[in-house]
Amino acid sequence: MSAPTTINIGLCGFGTVGQGVWKHLFANRTELEARLGVKLNLARAAVRDLKKARTVKIPASKITSDPLAIATDPAIHIVCELMGGTTLARKVTLAALRAGKIVVSANKALICEHGAEIFATAQKHGGHFFFEASVAGGIPIIKAVREGLVANRFPRIYGILNGTCNYILTQMEENDAPYATVLAEAKRLGYAEADESLDVDGWDTAHKASVLAWLAHGVWVKTDQMIVEGISRITPADFKNASVLGFGIKLLAVITRDFAKNELSVRVHPTLLPAGNVVANVSGVFNAISVKGDVVGTTFYSGRGAGQDATASAVISDLADAAALLRFGKGAHLNSEVTTDACRGCRLAPPESIRSRYYLRLTVKDQPGVLARVASIMAKHHVSIASVIQNPAERAGAASLVLTTHESNEREMGATLKQLTALASTLDEPVLLRIGDFND
Amino acid sequence: MSAPTTINIGLCGFGTVGQGVWKHLFANRTELEARLGVKLNLARAAVRDLKKARTVKIPASKITSDPLAIATDPAIHIVCELMGGTTLARKVTLAALRAGKIVVSANKALICEHGAEIFATAQKHGGHFFFEASVAGGIPIIKAVREGLVANRFPRIYGILNGTCNYILTQMEENDAPYATVLAEAKRLGYAEADESLDVDGWDTAHKASVLAWLAHGVWVKTDQMIVEGISRITPADFKNASVLGFGIKLLAVITRDFAKNELSVRVHPTLLPAGNVVANVSGVFNAISVKGDVVGTTFYSGRGAGQDATASAVISDLADAAALLRFGKGAHLNSEVTTDACRGCRLAPPESIRSRYYLRLTVKDQPGVLARVASIMAKHHVSIASVIQNPAERAGAASLVLTTHESNEREMGATLKQLTALASTLDEPVLLRIGDFND
Repeated sequence: MSAPTTINIGLCGFGTVGQGVWKHLFANRTELEARLGVKLNLARAAVRDLKKARTVKIPASKITSDPLAIATDPAIHIVCELMGGTTLARKVTLAALRAGKIVVSANKALICEHGAEIFATAQKHGGHFFFEASVAGGIPIIKAVREGLVANRFPRIYGILNGTCNYILTQMEENDAPYATVLAEAKRLGYAEADESLDVDGWDTAHKASVLAWLAHGVWVKTDQMIVEGISRITPADFKNASVLGFGIKLLAVITRDFAKNELSVRVHPTLLPAGNVVANVSGVFNAISVKGDVVGTTFYSGRGAGQDATASAVISDLADAAALLRFGKGAHLNSEVTTDACRGCRLAPPESIRSRYYLRLTVKDQPGVLARVASIMAKHHVSIASVIQNPAERAGAASLVLTTHESNEREMGATLKQLTALASTLDEPVLLRIGDFND
Repeated sequence: MSAPTTINIGLCGFGTVGQGVWKHLFANRTELEARLGVKLNLARAAVRDLKKARTVKIPASKITSDPLAIATDPAIHIVCELMGGTTLARKVTLAALRAGKIVVSANKALICEHGAEIFATAQKHGGHFFFEASVAGGIPIIKAVREGLVANRFPRIYGILNGTCNYILTQMEENDAPYATVLAEAKRLGYAEADESLDVDGWDTAHKASVLAWLAHGVWVKTDQMIVEGISRITPADFKNASVLGFGIKLLAVITRDFAKNELSVRVHPTLLPAGNVVANVSGVFNAISVKGDVVGTTFYSGRGAGQDATASAVISDLADAAALLRFGKGAHLNSEVTTDACRGCRLAPPESIRSRYYLRLTVKDQPGVLARVASIMAKHHVSIASVIQNPAERAGAASLVLTTHESNEREMGATLKQLTALASTLDEPVLLRIGDFND
């Protein structure tokens, strides 16, 4: 392909994000074209329902219901895959890459599941795959990690990557409100989907963690290789207990690499963070990421992690990079065709290598000997107790027992939890949260 | 030049930053070369004193005392200008650009003073000028604003861009310590230069503000076109007063653009920020930047703004971009040769357009009628008083009068201040601080 002076863009998917891209590209197009030195032509858009009324209007001649027709249209240079899902989206993405096109994607689930195949296809056929919008919405975290911090290896990356969960947790904490009430309100306000599981059970965060881990460490980690725990069992009491102990609670993706052992760990779980930690203070629908590099030290990023405008901002930045690549030739310096060698034979950390302090809340029968039994199970697994808070539980004849531990590991805590759950004196399934002793 | 497989890098300046670049490039070179697909060769370094002992050792054959010899050496592809200063640094930079080389610079003073000439020279001779390390050290803010947020126009960018000042202000606030004491301690610890003026009087921050303003708005604003005020007149009492009023105090660069009036304002001054503001909570030597885009909303960045390692991280990211450009051809999409059209005829905001609330501390004779005179001068200039705190001043017979105003502007406040200073009852030069009502 010789360098085009007009770049034809096809949008597959014209929902919230697709309409946002169209709207903002039109609004700021003059400046963008001046900066890039090319014309940007929104050539075609594929929609699911041709008859649906939309806020952003486009000429009927540009609309199709067949995204594959856009992916294979020889006139289209860049395909934006904004449909979501992993079946048709995969077909469209691979078809466009096979045709040597550039694909711009916001689809973290697709990348997490099929990233290896996508990048191999791009490499084989001279296509390119850009994905700034897939993690942390409008925060340019992909570019920061891949290009801005290219001098670094990354011992630790962690952050809030799901705005829905952060909104729910913030509301629970601020209003002392139970999970179910806040979730219902979040659905009413459109902050949570009708089927909330993808968000609140941690899967969306896990998809994004997978993308970041690949970027930083060159390994595809699937969600079934991670610890993935959601927020649905957290109660207002947990926020109160955490506060007494000097912590807030956030759903975090945590990616750690032990370079000495060459072990990588990727996990998603609610985490107690020191109250003064900057990530602990990011509330509402915002995302936040702390990136520790071995050269730069810790850098921190926050902003809107989702929504029409923030996501459109990220998609358009990819369109600009893609346009430069088309205009100037192979430009983006760490494209799919450049093999990252960041893994260097690293392996996933086994459970005994994943170490932290823990917060454990048990609802137990309020009778003599219970604490002794709990403590002896913990001792058997070499889990050392750091603090105990006992309160009457809401239900009659029950007590709430909140323990924090000194540093232990996932293997010992897993075994401990199993035995504690099996105790006759344990009334509900215990709640286990990790303590993230992250000061930056 | 055909694409080289080994890229020869020359360092002009081998002080703290130069040695950091050399050290980290060696340490992480294998991975970096794998990612970039080229060899990186640290070919030459120019030092001021050939005999000086240095922590980082390099072969004598690679050392010269003549940076211009490196700038004009045909074998060198990339020149890192890490000498500082604006005379020899300018010569070296222009010579390298005239030879069509890529210059990587951390020199904000040079860019602020000679940016227009540098970019014109690069464009004329096919050279390139990269400057990620010039603003906010290891935080990839240049890349974020220029590439990651390319979809946006920027109504407001503000932040802490000088770690020395932030260290001093943090120490003053936390230890209730006077400026002179903290400054002396900062010098002892190496956080402040022997001649502190560049930092504490705001000039370093102003140079960086100039770079950011050009990046976001396409206009070169010189420091003599800005309000530039430093931190030396702030006292522990100001922190206490600010705290009572619900604010912290930070030295900020503030860049605002009114798109309706098409006016741009670039200024540097100590600012009262709401205590809950995320920038207000960045302490010590860290830098922090809040970037509001018209599409993305507000994004926030923080990290180490100076020091050997953080600055080296930024320089190396530019080296990587430069290497990609050499390998793949014209790659970086918003290089010097692409004219930014972001100004669109904007003009610098006149004083009456620069509006904020103000904090005013007067040391006055403790006698009847003083407050009335002060209030009447303010009223004459249509400056409306929002709050008054009166305390006994340290000196006998004097009172400290702290006033905050409702929104006014620089013209009215300037005139007010002049008249208040001239009052016989005013004992010291008044302290005027701006209130930044920034919630994000």
